Amino acid sequence: MGKLLRGRNDEYGGVIVHMDDEAMDPATFISSLASSLAVWKLQGKKGVWLRLPIQRANLVEAAVQQGFWYHHAEPHYLMLVYWLHKSAHTLPENATHRLGIGAFLINQNREVLVVQEKGGQYGGTGVWKLPTGAVDEGEDIYAAAVREVKEETGIDSEFIEILAFRQIHKSFFQKSDLFFLCMLRPLSFDIQKQEQEIEAAKWMPFEEYAAQPYAQKYEFLMYLHDICIAKIDGNYTGFSPIPTTSYSVQKSYLYLNSTEAPKRYSKL
Amino acid sequence: MGKLLRGRNDEYGGVIVHMDDEAMDPATFISSLASSLAVWKLQGKKGVWLRLPIQRANLVEAAVQQGFWYHHAEPHYLMLVYWLHKSAHTLPENATHRLGIGAFLINQNREVLVVQEKGGQYGGTGVWKLPTGAVDEGEDIYAAAVREVKEETGIDSEFIEILAFRQIHKSFFQKSDLFFLCMLRPLSFDIQKQEQEIEAAKWMPFEEYAAQPYAQKYEFLMYLHDICIAKIDGNYTGFSPIPTTSYSVQKSYLYLNSTEAPKRYSKL
Repeated sequence: MGKLLRGRNDEYGGVIVHMDDEAMDPATFISSLASSLAVWKLQGKKGVWLRLPIQRANLVEAAVQQGFWYHHAEPHYLMLVYWLHKSAHTLPENATHRLGIGAFLINQNREVLVVQEKGGQYGGTGVWKLPTGAVDEGEDIYAAAVREVKEETGIDSEFIEILAFRQIHKSFFQKSDLFFLCMLRPLSFDIQKQEQEIEAAKWMPFEEYAAQPYAQKYEFLMYLHDICIAKIDGNYTGFSPIPTTSYSVQKSYLYLNSTEAPKRYSKL
Repeated sequence: MGKLLRGRNDEYGGVIVHMDDEAMDPATFISSLASSLAVWKLQGKKGVWLRLPIQRANLVEAAVQQGFWYHHAEPHYLMLVYWLHKSAHTLPENATHRLGIGAFLINQNREVLVVQEKGGQYGGTGVWKLPTGAVDEGEDIYAAAVREVKEETGIDSEFIEILAFRQIHKSFFQKSDLFFLCMLRPLSFDIQKQEQEIEAAKWMPFEEYAAQPYAQKYEFLMYLHDICIAKIDGNYTGFSPIPTTSYSVQKSYLYLNSTEAPKRYSKL
């Protein structure tokens, strides 16, 4: 019988094993894993989570041979799972969405901040677009919008509202995508464009921007531009971020219609 | 020199290899992979995506030895990546967020639909909660809300609005979480609770629900309940889903403030 693997219990009747500490050969690992699974089964455990750092890639095949399957992976580790119980498994799904932002900023002349991208779908096409980018892992949506504007154009800005968002599916392998159209107020106006990704950046009359063939091509974009115009004219309210605490320690942001929300928020 | 692996080009100067077709031993694979990398490098390729179905778990260690690292995994495959170019890699990040919904439904007596869960953090506590659940991969947010209400309580409903949403980080391993508070209109009123996860379900006076110690414990929940009351009283507007097309073929939903949005939407 193999030496038992060290696991810690989770809150859902399962076990989590991190194979971080010591190197192990596959034969020893199979023996230990088989013995451990037998013990956990007797203990009535349900799910088993096995975290293999990339340095333990030599153990992946052995775990799969024992009946484990993949749950998720990050650059430095692979998480595998196994279900010991006779009931159907209730292991939670992996992350399903990526998030992106588009930033809408106008100056005092009703000009919108736009960029031409060097690469991607619109590289070399001469199309002027709103600055866009991905929300990084662990980043707040509003912070991503401010960061992308600064990175691409050098403009400092203050976040105002999420004006609208779109959900699309199968955007990246099987994953879905949420795109947030964000309104920001510029705090500086001199453009310093980023060299690596941005071909050009400028302030452009909004009507000229919206009249481009690109902007007329997709119903989705025309909707977004209508919202932008309504916002410029003071006839639209989106969602603003409000800091709050969800659990005892965790700070997070709630996005809501703050002009209509109860008084409780107005002090924030 | 090993036989070259068959790859197809992607739009970003990279190569994608699917190892689905034939079984291969690790030694043959290493030889083929090394030869292929040399050829792709000469061709000026940048990123290499290597998709190993779980049946090819025997090749994971070999790929890692060649310098590949993990990008993401799903139950049936592991995706590894390699960067051939001298520039910093620009490979896109993995999915970063999971999505969840909470459903707010009231009947004509100003009673709110609530459940007691069997498991999880509130199992056995007697706490009455709004129905909640995860948005499945590939599922629209509004559809997830309607589905969860039906599954947990048997109530048919029509989606009205997203009232607010919250973003929290490190909710599930390193992944973030978006929770959408959704308002739905009940189309039926007789509760048929789900056996597996739900201990009890009922219509409960909203004030009684909001007065529970649980509902007073977190600032976040008090905010949500204030919004619910404002909505009941007709003083709040959230985001409604509008069907649209983003690219030539893809149907998707845009969530926006439809009461203030331009006329273009009102026909939808």
